[in-house]
Amino acid sequence: MREHPATLIKRKRAGQELSDEQIRDLVDGVCDGSLEDAQLGAFLMAVCLQGMSAREAATLTLAMRDSGRVLDLAAIPGVKVDKHSTGGVGDKISLFLAPLVAAAGVPVPMISGRGLGHTGGTLDKLAAIPGYTTAIEPEEFVAVLRDCGYVMAGASADIAPADRRMYATRDVTGTVESVPLITASILSKKLAEGIDGLVLDVKCGRAAFMQTREDAEELTRSLVDVGRAADKRVTALVTDMDTPLGNAVGNALEVAEIVECLHGRGPRDVVDLTFALAAEMLVLAGSVRTPDEARPRLEQLVEDGSALDACRANVVRQGGDPAFLDDPKALGCAPVVAPFEPKLGRDVFVADIDPLEVGLAAVDLGAGRRHSADDVDPHVGIVLHKKVGDVVRDDEALFTVHARDHAAAEAAVVRVARAVGFADARPPARPLVLTRVD
Amino acid sequence: MREHPATLIKRKRAGQELSDEQIRDLVDGVCDGSLEDAQLGAFLMAVCLQGMSAREAATLTLAMRDSGRVLDLAAIPGVKVDKHSTGGVGDKISLFLAPLVAAAGVPVPMISGRGLGHTGGTLDKLAAIPGYTTAIEPEEFVAVLRDCGYVMAGASADIAPADRRMYATRDVTGTVESVPLITASILSKKLAEGIDGLVLDVKCGRAAFMQTREDAEELTRSLVDVGRAADKRVTALVTDMDTPLGNAVGNALEVAEIVECLHGRGPRDVVDLTFALAAEMLVLAGSVRTPDEARPRLEQLVEDGSALDACRANVVRQGGDPAFLDDPKALGCAPVVAPFEPKLGRDVFVADIDPLEVGLAAVDLGAGRRHSADDVDPHVGIVLHKKVGDVVRDDEALFTVHARDHAAAEAAVVRVARAVGFADARPPARPLVLTRVD
Repeated sequence: MREHPATLIKRKRAGQELSDEQIRDLVDGVCDGSLEDAQLGAFLMAVCLQGMSAREAATLTLAMRDSGRVLDLAAIPGVKVDKHSTGGVGDKISLFLAPLVAAAGVPVPMISGRGLGHTGGTLDKLAAIPGYTTAIEPEEFVAVLRDCGYVMAGASADIAPADRRMYATRDVTGTVESVPLITASILSKKLAEGIDGLVLDVKCGRAAFMQTREDAEELTRSLVDVGRAADKRVTALVTDMDTPLGNAVGNALEVAEIVECLHGRGPRDVVDLTFALAAEMLVLAGSVRTPDEARPRLEQLVEDGSALDACRANVVRQGGDPAFLDDPKALGCAPVVAPFEPKLGRDVFVADIDPLEVGLAAVDLGAGRRHSADDVDPHVGIVLHKKVGDVVRDDEALFTVHARDHAAAEAAVVRVARAVGFADARPPARPLVLTRVD
Repeated sequence: MREHPATLIKRKRAGQELSDEQIRDLVDGVCDGSLEDAQLGAFLMAVCLQGMSAREAATLTLAMRDSGRVLDLAAIPGVKVDKHSTGGVGDKISLFLAPLVAAAGVPVPMISGRGLGHTGGTLDKLAAIPGYTTAIEPEEFVAVLRDCGYVMAGASADIAPADRRMYATRDVTGTVESVPLITASILSKKLAEGIDGLVLDVKCGRAAFMQTREDAEELTRSLVDVGRAADKRVTALVTDMDTPLGNAVGNALEVAEIVECLHGRGPRDVVDLTFALAAEMLVLAGSVRTPDEARPRLEQLVEDGSALDACRANVVRQGGDPAFLDDPKALGCAPVVAPFEPKLGRDVFVADIDPLEVGLAAVDLGAGRRHSADDVDPHVGIVLHKKVGDVVRDDEALFTVHARDHAAAEAAVVRVARAVGFADARPPARPLVLTRVD
């Protein structure tokens, strides 16, 4: 480093801006180890408390992107567009979105992550498909994208290695919640995919990273600004995560829900949000002029089986057995399946479902990870039969728990039952998309 | 730890107070390694930016003190009093103060540090005395104190080990300047000495840790409050460090100046500050009622040779050759001795001497350390023949550089000459003691 790390850290501590060169030096130090753990911890805390300017956040993001390999997708014709969600409970959108957008002719190179805590991860859901592999070398990544129109993979070790060390350090030092650090972490990896455009789904609500509208919009603004500073086409939606997305929470259960979506029978909210995000991707790719223009085309691609075909081709290409696309039972099943009927003695409306509690119940069942080294059980989880606004009749099941054993099932039933609130009147409908930033 | 470190760090990050138990857990984690480097760095930065309450600072100090051995001086009769200075250029006060106060019958158990950067350290000055050892085991520490009335030693590895790790981490993470962290670092070690009372000399000015009066007084208040929370008698003086203290800067050169002081021929400022601090120590020990009452007694102890005798006894007891007390030449001499005459063509007043530049010139010569592993040359340094307010006649030397070679001497002459400002009128006298807090 040209300057002593302590000098740079003190500058940020004092609330001053770091130059592009100083930020690049720090990121170099993250990668080559010349920035010690204690210095990284102190720097991250100083950023949390003193913030970063838009320029600093952009420089940090690009330096982190350039810490590893940046994929070159120039050989693939067309405008390559990806989607990133900040994560929620029941968020299986990518699995429906990628084949749908690919079917519309827009290439989707997608690098996804694993779940941690109550938030699910696309890689874990894909792992529920027998044979499907997401461990793909860069050359193969490009080939699958070219052949299938979309590709789904985990980040290889050479994608943004600076982020790997910084993220692990943030996790143990209480420095996760910082808009510039979140921005740089998300975008450094996405920009390394070689994309031309990116649609961001910033979740907002109890089960989201950003729980208030204000915080979600601040992060959204930062993501859009930095993405554009990196010369990418970027649109962002702030969307609701104050109730679980769709009916299923749990890996194979969510894949089964996606199969329903691909057959045109998906839950309203999953379909609507997927169409909304897909429409933005088509706009970024220049395929349509407005999101509204995209909608009938997307509906058509589901109806005529194009999206399903795209999915089938990708599943086969990535080593998966496509049988589940015709019969989700091929995904396997948990040993204990326990429906829960509240038996309230009268018809009531579901007024609220706390997505955080549902997500944590799924983690308890083994569908998610408490620690990053934990194993995930593909079959366990929860299926909600009723959503907010639905009527529950006296003889109807509210949800079903899929568990490894009876004890786990019982605990999950108690936890999820407590997460649901009832009312005698229908609660007002809540919008799914809260804000659009383009 | 009872809670995850990240939870405690986040609490401090949010500006909340930590409980006594939480602070003790963190200090335990510093010692047993369960608090990782990155977590310690993040925690220190959070404290720098969010501060600590007086209670938190006191709890931190006591937990750090209790991380190691606490000396028991109950076997020594009388009120044991020490002095601590936050460090400056030319600050050799301890070497005169300890024998003087011991001669007055007040036991002085003194654990000192090495110099780093432009600030000198008492251990380095003592190392300039042939044979003198400051590496003393606790039992011997108590025996020397009993036999000689004072003892001077370095901190053994079992004194406040938490501070050792925390200080080293602060040094590389830009988290040195924090009132609660400075307070805890200073007092944890001093309280481990088993003292009853402590006089603090908080330096203020360009070569001090605290450069403004406001900052120095804030630190002073914190030190006094925490010292009293630990049931110690504490008085503090904020004193000037905007000009070097005394004439000599450099280890053997400063010891030689102390010999002058012990013979009643010391520079005005060194003698005045030593008497002021000694008087406070005698007040804390209950030997006199007011500082003014102490002054004639202290003068008498120098005049009748009691202070010199106390010094001689201690030097012999700690393995040193006392010959230097009669002839400072016994300390040895640097190979190059270069006086500098400004030759301004007329008589002028010295208006300013920048102590930071003089201190850094001494480090350049080898009298101090840039890095903690550096060796120190006992013989090199600078002797100022003129101080602020003095007249420099055309044929007079302003200062003399003592160096290892001519090149080093020349560089130091240039640097020190630039550090001196002149005026045609006598500059207004500056007080040595700025504030007294008791």
